[in-house]
Amino acid sequence: MKLSARNQLQGQVVRITEGQAMAEVVVKVGNLEFVSAITEGSVKAMEVKIGDAVTVAIKATDVIVGK
Amino acid sequence: MKLSARNQLQGQVVRITEGQAMAEVVVKVGNLEFVSAITEGSVKAMEVKIGDAVTVAIKATDVIVGK
Amino acid sequence: MKLSARNQLQGQVVRITEGQAMAEVVVKVGNLEFVSAITEGSVKAMEVKIGDAVTVAIKATDVIVGK
Amino acid sequence: MKLSARNQLQGQVVRITEGQAMAEVVVKVGNLEFVSAITEGSVKAMEVKIGDAVTVAIKATDVIVGK
Amino acid sequence: MKLSARNQLQGQVVRITEGQAMAEVVVKVGNLEFVSAITEGSVKAMEVKIGDAVTVAIKATDVIVGK
Amino acid sequence: MKLSARNQLQGQVVRITEGQAMAEVVVKVGNLEFVSAITEGSVKAMEVKIGDAVTVAIKATDVIVGK
Repeated sequence: MKLSARNQLQGQVVRITEGQAMAEVVVKVGNLEFVSAITEGSVKAMEVKIGDAVTVAIKATDVIVGK
Repeated sequence: MKLSARNQLQGQVVRITEGQAMAEVVVKVGNLEFVSAITEGSVKAMEVKIGDAVTVAIKATDVIVGK
Repeated sequence: MKLSARNQLQGQVVRITEGQAMAEVVVKVGNLEFVSAITEGSVKAMEVKIGDAVTVAIKATDVIVGK
Repeated sequence: MKLSARNQLQGQVVRITEGQAMAEVVVKVGNLEFVSAITEGSVKAMEVKIGDAVTVAIKATDVIVGK
Repeated sequence: MKLSARNQLQGQVVRITEGQAMAEVVVKVGNLEFVSAITEGSVKAMEVKIGDAVTVAIKATDVIVGK
Repeated sequence: MKLSARNQLQGQVVRITEGQAMAEVVVKVGNLEFVSAITEGSVKAMEVKIGDAVTVAIKATDVIVGK
């Protein structure tokens, strides 16, 4: 499936911090790390675990530019 | 200024597509390209132009994980 | 690919309004219609056209509740 | 009050998972279920409870299209 | 209708910039001005015009903190 | 650093509710209060505490208009 989210990167899950409603998942993409806050329900439903090969997807309207 | 947006990357503006209300700005970060859709007003106010050294900032809640 | 976006619905593109930087795509899901504003670049890259079978995906943090 | 959020659907709260800062609220709309992650403070302030008739509102820029 | 969006402020529309798919609406709240980018379709559907008394609503997850 | 987020306001942190993955930070701007939900990791990394002078930044696409 192709997504309209303009930014899509392949990486690997390196850290998961679970909470009651939300969880934090850290994904290593090359030498960068992306932090994602998703629902705890998604972590469970997708069975996200350390070492998983994943895609991080980010909409263009969610990318802020600082100069 | 430190931002609560957990993802912040240094890059360089490589492409700008202007529209009436919104504009698209492409930022090269290492060998990755990030597409940002910001208001045309921001492009004008910040005088964003090709070659500018910029930061792209993305909140953790805006990072989707696909597996 | 499974997505962390908790809301995913299957539908069909019924209307597209193109702009310079952003476009509006309307997707019919059962008897509901979802309006999506994506970049014009996504419309072109994905070759979105009327009649396409598509998925609409929405993050849980983007669903507001009114009572 | 009319909202600029282009997607607005009437439904009923069927499940609530409370956390310390965030909560998850599931709303049934026809035969679909929408998952919303809102602050625990909103759940308390609005006194959201199972069976409530609610509206789910989603901005067009938050609807991703997959094809 | 009460909204789960934690930030809601009363103001008055002072400026509208229309585009093909998106429009920019500026709302004065006390001595502050809020810039909103909504779809052109919303501007038309709600008949937003200068002088209108409106509410601006912003989700807590959309408020970035800088220090 | 100038940010493309069109709405930026100076205020002071007046309340912090910490959770496992997400935290809620309340910022007083003049006589208004803004509620922000950021990751617990940001609160720790930025050492956000009551009394801090901070900026709240909000993208134009995240400002909903109600009429």
